Amino acid sequence: MSEAAFLTDFHHVASFGATENKGVERQAATPEDKLSRDWFAAFAAQRDWEVRVDGIGNMFALIELVPGAPYILLGSHLDSQPLGGRFDGAYGVLAGLHAAQRVVERLRTEASTPEFNLAVVNWFNEEGGRFAPSIMGSSVFAGSMDEAKMLAVKDLAGTTVAQALEAIGYLGTDVRPELAGYAEIHIEQGRILEREGITLGAVDYSWYTQKLDIEVLGEQSHTGATAMADRHDALVAASKVVLLVHDVTAQFAAEALVSSVGQLTLEPNSPIVVARRVHLVADLRSASPQIVAEARGSLIADIAQIAKDHDIRINVNDFDVRDIQYYPEDGLELTEKVAANLGLEVRRIRTMAGHDSVAMNRIVPTVMMFIPSVDGVSHCEREFTTDADMLAGVQALSGVAWEMVHGALSPRRNAGTELFEVAAK
Amino acid sequence: MSEAAFLTDFHHVASFGATENKGVERQAATPEDKLSRDWFAAFAAQRDWEVRVDGIGNMFALIELVPGAPYILLGSHLDSQPLGGRFDGAYGVLAGLHAAQRVVERLRTEASTPEFNLAVVNWFNEEGGRFAPSIMGSSVFAGSMDEAKMLAVKDLAGTTVAQALEAIGYLGTDVRPELAGYAEIHIEQGRILEREGITLGAVDYSWYTQKLDIEVLGEQSHTGATAMADRHDALVAASKVVLLVHDVTAQFAAEALVSSVGQLTLEPNSPIVVARRVHLVADLRSASPQIVAEARGSLIADIAQIAKDHDIRINVNDFDVRDIQYYPEDGLELTEKVAANLGLEVRRIRTMAGHDSVAMNRIVPTVMMFIPSVDGVSHCEREFTTDADMLAGVQALSGVAWEMVHGALSPRRNAGTELFEVAAK
Repeated sequence: MSEAAFLTDFHHVASFGATENKGVERQAATPEDKLSRDWFAAFAAQRDWEVRVDGIGNMFALIELVPGAPYILLGSHLDSQPLGGRFDGAYGVLAGLHAAQRVVERLRTEASTPEFNLAVVNWFNEEGGRFAPSIMGSSVFAGSMDEAKMLAVKDLAGTTVAQALEAIGYLGTDVRPELAGYAEIHIEQGRILEREGITLGAVDYSWYTQKLDIEVLGEQSHTGATAMADRHDALVAASKVVLLVHDVTAQFAAEALVSSVGQLTLEPNSPIVVARRVHLVADLRSASPQIVAEARGSLIADIAQIAKDHDIRINVNDFDVRDIQYYPEDGLELTEKVAANLGLEVRRIRTMAGHDSVAMNRIVPTVMMFIPSVDGVSHCEREFTTDADMLAGVQALSGVAWEMVHGALSPRRNAGTELFEVAAK
Repeated sequence: MSEAAFLTDFHHVASFGATENKGVERQAATPEDKLSRDWFAAFAAQRDWEVRVDGIGNMFALIELVPGAPYILLGSHLDSQPLGGRFDGAYGVLAGLHAAQRVVERLRTEASTPEFNLAVVNWFNEEGGRFAPSIMGSSVFAGSMDEAKMLAVKDLAGTTVAQALEAIGYLGTDVRPELAGYAEIHIEQGRILEREGITLGAVDYSWYTQKLDIEVLGEQSHTGATAMADRHDALVAASKVVLLVHDVTAQFAAEALVSSVGQLTLEPNSPIVVARRVHLVADLRSASPQIVAEARGSLIADIAQIAKDHDIRINVNDFDVRDIQYYPEDGLELTEKVAANLGLEVRRIRTMAGHDSVAMNRIVPTVMMFIPSVDGVSHCEREFTTDADMLAGVQALSGVAWEMVHGALSPRRNAGTELFEVAAK
């Protein structure tokens, strides 16, 4: 095992789509994404690991340890947000590849009988910046999104997922591997680990999230010639909606709810035309579904009042509702055991962000781990995690992978009743 | 002279780029714009009028009455806003063509000695929806915008004006006609004429206008994982700016100022990313430069406070400042005389919108006339003017053109001192 090799590979992958300010711009199925995919395939090929690409562009590197057995899958995603950070996703794929490599090496020197095979994945389009919704590849794999529908999703330029994957040569037809478990490591994207000086987070549950699709329909008119009283300005009403979505968080305890608008487009978007239509997406997240429901109710009432005040129409639709997901208790205990063996401090931690592991957790025993993010910033070029923390995470993932390959989290141990007990906490 | 011929032609041109709701989408140098241009050229060719296209895509139809003399030019623009109305601009070009036709016919039957030649123009890109700034073709003609710079202006897809004109075959090289005067007729785009039941407006001056280019620079971060307190959300700050720009009008007498944001884009515009940058354009207009200056001062102070409150940067730049322009008094009197002869009610009226005539008024004696707009709406599909009002306007323009061709407004009568007197009103 080589720490230098991991760091060399990590910083090399960060050069694909590198931006001036040390970030990356590597949106799903772009030429930059292709560079990182080609690199992933080459890494596997050099080790004689089988590479498969499925019908939604997920890439798998397969290592056969027990002929015919299902696989323990490690990984994350190599795509990024526009002007995103170089750690989000890529760290988990690189850690997965190097952890797999370490398990393979350890198996050569240590007498043991693995129960499962081992694989590494690069999921397609976790970010969703180009093609919505996010967490697309793993959700299709897990059966919670429809492959044909996702292949037909278009970006703002009208290109479909199928066309974009085809264009970079990654619309595959390979059979998906049968799985026995999944493990992912990711940067925290918050500042809890950093603040507490803890290296490893054992992710116990994901926040409840939902989006609101909001369409504000005013009337187009001339910015110069139309009297203020005669206007039905969709952007003025939409701006009030943006502020409502922000301010609703103040109705709850500090940080109990995060809520924001990240996407907004107006039509016709001409400097001398009052906007006729604004489309925007609000994103609400909380540990408590009740808080999200209350915030949603408050927003819908206030938005109705704005529509009335401005004599315009505002349509609001719920979408992308994601329930709280608890990660299995034995996976948390496994992370804690591995951390203890390595002498790493560990704590349980929730995730406010969505991850591929949230989708995978619905179908197989899943472990999710975090390492610290400096200043808690993410989805931006300034995103940063130290080499030391990254290396500690690779050790932890290697340890977890070793145990899982040897049956530590086999499905029968992950009983439904236990899940319910955790959920009732 | 045929009223039916005018109406047939007007409604035919409205079919180029026609939308479902009786509007038109015929932005500058698009295939739809080309259809209207081809029609304009054919109209002229059928009458043996010479067609010229200049280096910024302006089209002229020239009728020689006095060999070697300068031209009286009639016209407006055939381009539209996105989902715009079928009257704005197109009415003035059609009225110009038919007025010219009537002058030619009248000269065949009436003994008279014209002093000038006669021409009709279709100005390039008056609307500015695709390529900013607006009033481009006439401003280049008048020397107040630089042709080379305007040819390099790009639309949102990165296509330059030169490329777009070349693509539709209207990047010309013809010599521009020498002018002795300009007359334009346009729909009011407000509701003063309709409210007062008056058919014709003699436009006496244009409002003072200016735009503010505003760039809000926050920090990109994850909408889910970033604590509310840690955010520097460019869209939240920008929404406050949009509301300020709207609300500043309330500091002044009703309708003394119009102010709005019609264009706004955010980056990266992803549903799960807090925006790092919002770019928007504010448009302020008033009859009083002092009011615009006060509103601008108020906005800049309030925007600075928003930047401070949000710990982000907001850059504000003035651009596209257009002074009040007075149309010459003898042109107003000419319109009034022609209206009286036709038995049409006429009143003096200011324009809050920019027009090609504002650019032309800087270089030659210029007459600007309005006909009523139903409900005062414009830059939208619902824009409407009755056939009867359009026909009355064609009669008025024909009368004005007849008088101007016979020297009614020759440059020496438009003394600078008289302009100053009007300006001091």
